[in-house]
This record gives sequence, C-alpha cells and structure tokens, in this order.
Amino acid sequence: MALISPSRRLRRTPFSAGVEAAGVKAYTIYNHMLLPTVFESLEADYHHLKNHVQVWDVSAERQVELRGPDAARLMQMLTPRDLRGMLPGRCFYVPIVDETGGMLNDPVAVKLAEDRWWISIADSDLLLWVKGIANGWRLDVLIDEPDVSPLAVQGPKAEDLMARIFGESIRDVRFFRFGLFEYEGQELAVARSGYSKQGGYEIYVEGSDLGMPLWNALFKAGEDLNVRAGCPNAIERIEGGLLSYGNDMTDDNTPHECGLGRFCDTQTAIGCIGRDALLRVAKEGPVQQVQAIAIDGDPVPGCDRIWPLYGSGRRVGQVTSAAWSPDFETNVAIGMVRMTHWDPGTELEVETPLGMRKAVVQPGFWA
Amino acid sequence: MALISPSRRLRRTPFSAGVEAAGVKAYTIYNHMLLPTVFESLEADYHHLKNHVQVWDVSAERQVELRGPDAARLMQMLTPRDLRGMLPGRCFYVPIVDETGGMLNDPVAVKLAEDRWWISIADSDLLLWVKGIANGWRLDVLIDEPDVSPLAVQGPKAEDLMARIFGESIRDVRFFRFGLFEYEGQELAVARSGYSKQGGYEIYVEGSDLGMPLWNALFKAGEDLNVRAGCPNAIERIEGGLLSYGNDMTDDNTPHECGLGRFCDTQTAIGCIGRDALLRVAKEGPVQQVQAIAIDGDPVPGCDRIWPLYGSGRRVGQVTSAAWSPDFETNVAIGMVRMTHWDPGTELEVETPLGMRKAVVQPGFWA
Repeated sequence: MALISPSRRLRRTPFSAGVEAAGVKAYTIYNHMLLPTVFESLEADYHHLKNHVQVWDVSAERQVELRGPDAARLMQMLTPRDLRGMLPGRCFYVPIVDETGGMLNDPVAVKLAEDRWWISIADSDLLLWVKGIANGWRLDVLIDEPDVSPLAVQGPKAEDLMARIFGESIRDVRFFRFGLFEYEGQELAVARSGYSKQGGYEIYVEGSDLGMPLWNALFKAGEDLNVRAGCPNAIERIEGGLLSYGNDMTDDNTPHECGLGRFCDTQTAIGCIGRDALLRVAKEGPVQQVQAIAIDGDPVPGCDRIWPLYGSGRRVGQVTSAAWSPDFETNVAIGMVRMTHWDPGTELEVETPLGMRKAVVQPGFWA
Repeated sequence: MALISPSRRLRRTPFSAGVEAAGVKAYTIYNHMLLPTVFESLEADYHHLKNHVQVWDVSAERQVELRGPDAARLMQMLTPRDLRGMLPGRCFYVPIVDETGGMLNDPVAVKLAEDRWWISIADSDLLLWVKGIANGWRLDVLIDEPDVSPLAVQGPKAEDLMARIFGESIRDVRFFRFGLFEYEGQELAVARSGYSKQGGYEIYVEGSDLGMPLWNALFKAGEDLNVRAGCPNAIERIEGGLLSYGNDMTDDNTPHECGLGRFCDTQTAIGCIGRDALLRVAKEGPVQQVQAIAIDGDPVPGCDRIWPLYGSGRRVGQVTSAAWSPDFETNVAIGMVRMTHWDPGTELEVETPLGMRKAVVQPGFWA
C-alpha cells in the first residue's frame, strides 16, 4: 500500500482531529474528502463493530440541498423511485439515473420539507448533474452543498450510547426516519440509518464548530460501552450486501442490474429523466445482476480492480469487492453475473491476484 | 501520512504496472483515479524534472468527449472564453463556469474537429455538468468519458526523447497545438502541453493495450537521457503558478479571482451560461485574486488545509498551496488575497502549522 499525499483538495472534516487522535491507519478518498478505512485492523474493527459501538466520521457523505418551489419536481426527475407518498421526516434510498438509465449515484434522499431536500450522496459529484438539469430545464430551485457533515454511530450498543447524548426519545426513531434533536442548543437531524447492518444512527452535523465537542461527548459517554472510532468496514459491508458506487456499479449499470429494481417504480415515476430508457429493462429484467459470491480457499486480498468471472469456459461477469469473512469462514464477494450463470449454486471460476479460484453464486448475502 | 486503501473505485490506469515497478511512494486521488505524487522524494523528483526528462502517468486527466452537431455550441455554453476563432488541432485552456460564474473546472479543451471535442479535465466530475446541461437544453450531442489516458513526457530533454519514438516531426508541434502521430500502427494525438513549466508533450493514449508498450519504449529509448518515472511536482508547479482546482480555487471563485480573466471574453462569448453573472466582475474586476506569496523562514510542510492570511490586523485571504523551493531558497506559495492587500511587496502574516510566519506578496510567480 502506498501513502496518500495530503492537500486541501482532499478535504479534511470537522472530525479529522478526533480521527487522527484515534490512530487512523488508512483512508480512502470519497467525494474529494478523507474517509477513514482502517483503525486497528480491518478484522479487529469488524469484530468490534459487531459487538460494541463505533463513532464514524462519514462527512464524505456530502449533501446536495434542493430548496424552492421546484425542489420536489426536480427530485422526482432524478430518480425512478416514486416519491409521491414520501412525507417530510422520511429517508428514501434512491437510485439516480441519467437519460439512458445509467446509475449516477445511489444516495439517500432526506425530505426535510415539501420544498427542501438533502441528497446524501455516494462518491460522484452529483451536485453538478443536479445543477445542470435545473439550469437546462429552467427550474425554480436553489442547489448547493451545505456545510453538513454526517457522523454515524453504529453497532449493537449504538442506541444506548445515543440515548445518553440525545435522550431516551432517540429510541423511538424508526428505521430510515429522522427526527430533530437538540445538542448544545442546536437542532440536528438524526436518522436511524448507516452504512452497516449492525444498526445505528447518522447525525447530520451542521457547521464545523459542533464537530469535535459532539465527537468527544460520544466517547466520554460511551467509555463503559467500549466505544471506539470506526469507519465503514469492507468485510461487514460485503457480508451485508451493501453496494458501493464506483466499486460494484458505475454509470454503465442500470438500477435493475444492481438489484435495485425494488426501488424503481418505473411506471409511475412520471418525470424521471431515465424513465423511458428503463421501461423496457423494468419489463424484461436485466441480463446481468449483482450477486453474492463465495470464493473458495485461503483469504484473498482486497479487490482493487475487476476480477473476471468465468463459467462454461467463457467470461460471464466480474467480482468487484471481496474480503475474507472471519464469521462466515469464507471469502465473501460482490460481483456482476450474466443471467446464464446467476442461479444460486452455480459454480464459477474467478481470476484473483492469487490465481484462479472456484466461486459459487449464493442465494443471498450473508447478513 | 496515512496509507491509501486500494479499491476499484480508486481506478488504476493503463500505466499502473509501470508506475509501481518504478517505486511510486505516494499518490493523490484525482477524478476517482490514482495519480502518483512522489517517486524518489519531492525534492529529488523536482531537480530531476528540471534537468532531464520524466514520463508521467496523468491518466487521471480524464476526457469528456462532445460529439455531434451541437458539440461546438455546447462547448461555448460551458466557458466564457470565445471559441469562434479556434481551429481543429488547437488546445485552449478554458475556465468552465456555472450560472453564477463559479469555477467548475479549469480544463484544456482539445478541438479534434468541428463536431468533436475532448475536454481534458481537472478534478471534478465535469461529465455530469455537461450531460445535465445537454439534457436540459435538449442538445443534439453525445457526451461520454472515452477510454483515453494521457501520458506526459516533461522536462528539458522531452523533445529529444519524443523524437526518438515519434520521429523528428514531433519537434514542429507548437505550444498548445497537437498533431496525429503513429505508434505501433495506431494514430495518437500528441500535444505540446503539460502540467509543468519545463516543456514537453502529452500523448493521448486510446485504450489500454498500448499503455505499457509505449511506457516501456520511452524508458528504453531514454536510458542515456536519464529518463525516470515522474509526476506533477508540487514544488515546481507552485514556482510556476500552475493552479490546482480544488486546492487554489473552488466553485466559490470566479475565473477573474483566479487570475484567469485573460481567458474570459465575457463580452463576446455569446451563449456562455455564466456570461451574465461575469459581465459585472469583468468590468469592475474581482475583489480578491490569486497571488504568488513568499513565506519567510524554515521550510513549511505541505498545505493540507486553508492557512489564513492576515494584514493590518484582519483576515485578508488564505494560502492554499505551499512548498519549500530549493532553487529560490524560500517557501513558495499560492494564495487568494483581498485587493486591499494584494499589491506586490505587501507584508502579511500567515498562520501555518508551525506558527505565524511573515509572508510577502510577490510581483509574479517564480518561474
């Protein structure tokens, strides 16, 4: 592994001082921002996340804010998910597609009010697409990246820790809902969400001043809960089938190929820019789709490029994320597989840096 | 410095194998791609670049291709630089602005034909802005990111090395022009350009197959020229005043604030989306502008966040890039300074990680 050269362009966050003091070992860059990837080790972080509670600097989940009379119309133009029934206080996972139905991002849309939305984005400059669309269609809407940095609290003890900071009513927040909670006199949106399957919250911290005080308060309040600094964990997210934009899908893929067809109401999402392009794939289904794949043998390294998948002697797809799972005692992986070979139990071969390995399509993800 | 976690999302390039074999020590991430930053050391790389010839993997300078009957119209919508006089075979440095005149990128536009352009981009997903604009304005144009990876050959011996590979006629290519040159039976666009002040070329390598053969051929042909693997050098680019989007400017800044007013023909660039917003600033001038700044004292570290600038006891700007220059024996820096304090010779104070330092506004960049 090589070093990362610091520069202003790889933006620091309101929590960077805390992350550094906690001994961060590695980062990725996500939305032009530092996103920690390892503290103690990938495996130690993984076990801790599944048993205790972690505080994650996920500031890199930047927000695109839509505000004004055309905000809701614009939001529907961006996604094939039907948003008519969505009430303020709800979070929706929304595929964002271009005019060909290709994925531009897979964010969470946060509806603050009828005329005010946050799109909590994965790693692409979605702001530019949204601004371009709004300009070209001459919509009455303000679009910008507000100074909002999400802080996630994840793990089985997350609820207990959060209750100590925000009060018992934090326990009543339902999955993919958010409420407004006061901290040091400031109201913050707190959602039950996060990029793990261990449960927890995301706190949308506005401005930078509150960052380190809140970070420190969480660590102080959670001492007896064994709270630690953490980050999205590659092993845990693959076990749980949490996709990563840029890794497991790109703008080459439709939502249906990504297994996100259930978030597409292609018939009724009137106004969606990619709707025409998706009508056919929605009806006929995709010819390739994201699958859980187990890779035989000793632990494989991380997947830093496409690993080709072969079946019946020909190329049938690719693995895009992989890790050794201590809990499931196999290499867990995410891949895109052609329909001829995607049935659960299908035996494939995958070309890893350690050579050809047997691989088996799974009926679903592990967790 | 922390490690970088490899993943497919941080894309490798056609030259990555060569870069690794050459002992790359650090990277930055640029357009979701690996961009080397250090081989031997920042200073050793710097001296070598100024005296010999280097081969740079700048694949991260991705292309946005515009193709079709509305390509030229769209290109003019993106920039306040008047493109009417631009002929095929020319490269233009073009500020790209949004409807408020804010910088979205500072790429080089390469005019391949009347109806075919490449925009060789700095670090933002300009593709998304261009696609959004084309969609909203219903333009007749195809937009995508082609599989083109620039390879730069930079340094005083670049011309000699290039002539050995592409023939003597490569010497006739003028600054910011390109020609088509054959290598292994494939025609490649080769421009006299590059992100250094040492002279050289950028080869637009199409596809991946030709990458390593061309890389290896350059090293073999340049043995007696002391050719080495290199990369954009932080010291050299600051000395030369080569701005870095995301470091020295963001979408908060107008081109005029970035000292790029000479590339804005705001009166005549009819159709440019940001034209209305820029007319006033073009007439009255900006209230802050990028300046060369010398920082007193011992070598400062790299600038990984804004360093505030003070004058007359108040905040008057910020430094955004800095490095110790062995050749000029001072800390060279790029900063944004308010007009009250931007005259050459103005003495300021800058808050560095090593404490407050004296700083002086320079009449121009060093090289």
